Amino acid sequence: MRLVVVGGQAAGMSAAARARRLWGGLEIQVLERGEWISFGRCGLPYYLEGRVGALEELAAHTPEYFRRERNIAVRTGVEVAAIAPARREVALAGGERIAYDRLVVAMGARPKGTGLPGGGLPQVFALHSARDAARLGEFLERRRPRRAVVVGAGYLGLEAAEALRTRGVSAVTILEAAADVLSRGDAELTRRVRAHLERFRIELRTGVEVRGIEPERVAGVPAEVVVLAAGFQPNTELAAQAGLELGPSGGIRVSDRMETNLAGVYAAGDCVEVPHLVTGRPVYRPLGTTASKTGRVAGANAAGERERFRGVAGTSILGCCGLGIALTGLSETQARQEGFDAAAVWIEALDKRRYFGGRLTGVGLVGDRRSGRLLGGTVLGEEEAALRINVIAAALSRQMHVEEFQHLDLAYAPPFAPVWDPLLIAAQQLVKLLH
Amino acid sequence: MRLVVVGGQAAGMSAAARARRLWGGLEIQVLERGEWISFGRCGLPYYLEGRVGALEELAAHTPEYFRRERNIAVRTGVEVAAIAPARREVALAGGERIAYDRLVVAMGARPKGTGLPGGGLPQVFALHSARDAARLGEFLERRRPRRAVVVGAGYLGLEAAEALRTRGVSAVTILEAAADVLSRGDAELTRRVRAHLERFRIELRTGVEVRGIEPERVAGVPAEVVVLAAGFQPNTELAAQAGLELGPSGGIRVSDRMETNLAGVYAAGDCVEVPHLVTGRPVYRPLGTTASKTGRVAGANAAGERERFRGVAGTSILGCCGLGIALTGLSETQARQEGFDAAAVWIEALDKRRYFGGRLTGVGLVGDRRSGRLLGGTVLGEEEAALRINVIAAALSRQMHVEEFQHLDLAYAPPFAPVWDPLLIAAQQLVKLLH
Repeated sequence: MRLVVVGGQAAGMSAAARARRLWGGLEIQVLERGEWISFGRCGLPYYLEGRVGALEELAAHTPEYFRRERNIAVRTGVEVAAIAPARREVALAGGERIAYDRLVVAMGARPKGTGLPGGGLPQVFALHSARDAARLGEFLERRRPRRAVVVGAGYLGLEAAEALRTRGVSAVTILEAAADVLSRGDAELTRRVRAHLERFRIELRTGVEVRGIEPERVAGVPAEVVVLAAGFQPNTELAAQAGLELGPSGGIRVSDRMETNLAGVYAAGDCVEVPHLVTGRPVYRPLGTTASKTGRVAGANAAGERERFRGVAGTSILGCCGLGIALTGLSETQARQEGFDAAAVWIEALDKRRYFGGRLTGVGLVGDRRSGRLLGGTVLGEEEAALRINVIAAALSRQMHVEEFQHLDLAYAPPFAPVWDPLLIAAQQLVKLLH
Repeated sequence: MRLVVVGGQAAGMSAAARARRLWGGLEIQVLERGEWISFGRCGLPYYLEGRVGALEELAAHTPEYFRRERNIAVRTGVEVAAIAPARREVALAGGERIAYDRLVVAMGARPKGTGLPGGGLPQVFALHSARDAARLGEFLERRRPRRAVVVGAGYLGLEAAEALRTRGVSAVTILEAAADVLSRGDAELTRRVRAHLERFRIELRTGVEVRGIEPERVAGVPAEVVVLAAGFQPNTELAAQAGLELGPSGGIRVSDRMETNLAGVYAAGDCVEVPHLVTGRPVYRPLGTTASKTGRVAGANAAGERERFRGVAGTSILGCCGLGIALTGLSETQARQEGFDAAAVWIEALDKRRYFGGRLTGVGLVGDRRSGRLLGGTVLGEEEAALRINVIAAALSRQMHVEEFQHLDLAYAPPFAPVWDPLLIAAQQLVKLLH
């Protein structure tokens, strides 16, 4: 019995490793287009910044490791040209055919915008692969640009903007097509993030659609270097040609066992859509955590285990110039769009006792007037204060009501948190609006 | 209509403040035995240590503040001698009688062990009131003891031990009657805490019952100063005399609206018992957070609102010599005692990416083999890593299963957390044991 995994990053390698653990005798082969596997792409902004010394540090394991320690055959530098489910075969670009009994499609995503007019200019970079980061790092070293434009105010754009400033670029402008940052439709969040960025000489311009890149400017903003961080699109072309159904979000449609519509074919990672735990509807959320989890579930099921993936709460966190920005669930605007009768609060409170250096932490919560349910939250804070988002994520997973959330038995001690954690203060305020 | 609140600490003042907010015309009178109200007792170890400069800083508000800003009459230094529910009166020690329409009993708790033989010796201190802390601080200053015994390895005992070391006491021994620390029956936790304390020259001896204090030693251990931190007992004598029912844990029995068995009489804070969210059974857990919450609910209901308190997960956190120790729900032993078919895991994993200074964080989880439910957890970590306990607390509030917990959509970004948060790694291990 042979399992073939197409894609050797977070989802693919999680699937392979999990299948191996559950089924010692299974033959497992991973096909990776690039040079490296299990590559921690989320570390690229920190490589650029200089915090990560070498790109090799971001690769968790080598193909050799998997071969030797896990009995998993990994081939890098091989391009899959087609999937032929009828023959249970994968065809490589060179013509070679590889038969499979079970297949996991984990082909990932690619950055949007590289096809823009001017997207191929030498001062334009994505920040998706190790090669992108190496090239950009070299460019910064050699050319010492003073003005940069980052296209996109998602987490990668914000992280890249900070990295550019750290590397000595004196003026960084972020151009975002939407009215707000982080695909959140949250004006309050945008206002706070903008104010914070300004203190670090990063300008945020929203509502600016970039239609092309000129040699010395982008949408009128002078730029000697441009970083594309306008989001990702799933690599679904081969999957679609092979007859795999795509979902409304554009990702491959999968069951909660990560099965596609074709027998024996599973999909996971940045090429699939997943259910949102608050709305129940499929969403496209390419993130490393979801890739690892869906990969693990795909691997388990491909190896004959029954395991389910319930969905995502839409949690993410990023650090930008000392501010932790964390989101989960729906913003007020998103909740309205989903048909909820949304109410929202925003509070600021100390994250611990003043004599332990408590710092103001912002918490936004969104609830539904009709059901009383908690729908989403935002936490802005220094250092680890923003990790409070995980409490909201756990509550969303169980459709908790705001009434219950306000009484959660959260930990208190002067060095850690105040008697009324900022989360509970926000919930108390929200309860009043829901009545 | 007059509301009388007996006790002006966390529960009493929360009740009074909440009642005022909901009912502007209510007459509110608070009777406090001590000198200060809203006193942050949890800060006493930090006062001792020198981190809090003056005891006044621990008092959140003055009686004057409540009188002026909230129209709440606060009398300090008044001792309630009896409650007469039949006449709806409270009698003060001097003979004065105060009529009430609604009464909130928030009489708190007192330290255990002060009645021990030798408990009145001049080198023996509790760490319960501002006066205790002032006296102990002065004693340390004047006498510079080199050897100390702390009776009790609960959170106060561990915090006090650290404070004594910080103040220059060279050898500190903690004597605990139980086999384990923190009333948890958890040998693994005890082992880890003991090893940590040893590095800071604090000796932990468990299974040592202190039956009395001699002038120069306690249970054979030489001591020039002794701190009693052997837990608390609820102040229920007056309540019981007045006909208020006590529950099996010894605290005053209350409904989820904090009503006692007598009409118009509510109780809250360290003198009541509360339901445990995991077992559904009443427990006695005198903690500042619970006091504030139950006080708030008592105040709301006394003011005619309908508000419920669901219970506690048993969450607590403390910092000791740089280690954050956090608990919630049940330990494995406690779960067995409660009739669960308990399984437990303990893992250690990095709390964030290595290049962001990730540190080993320990996570223990307990689950029930029969139902698959998560029953409790422990987190040990540096600085704020231990605050992860709150995610477990939220899950316990909703009776989450371990299967679901392992897939929680927790935040990931290199500066904050790894792809697989230590919580999720522990849950994955536990899932295997439950199958």
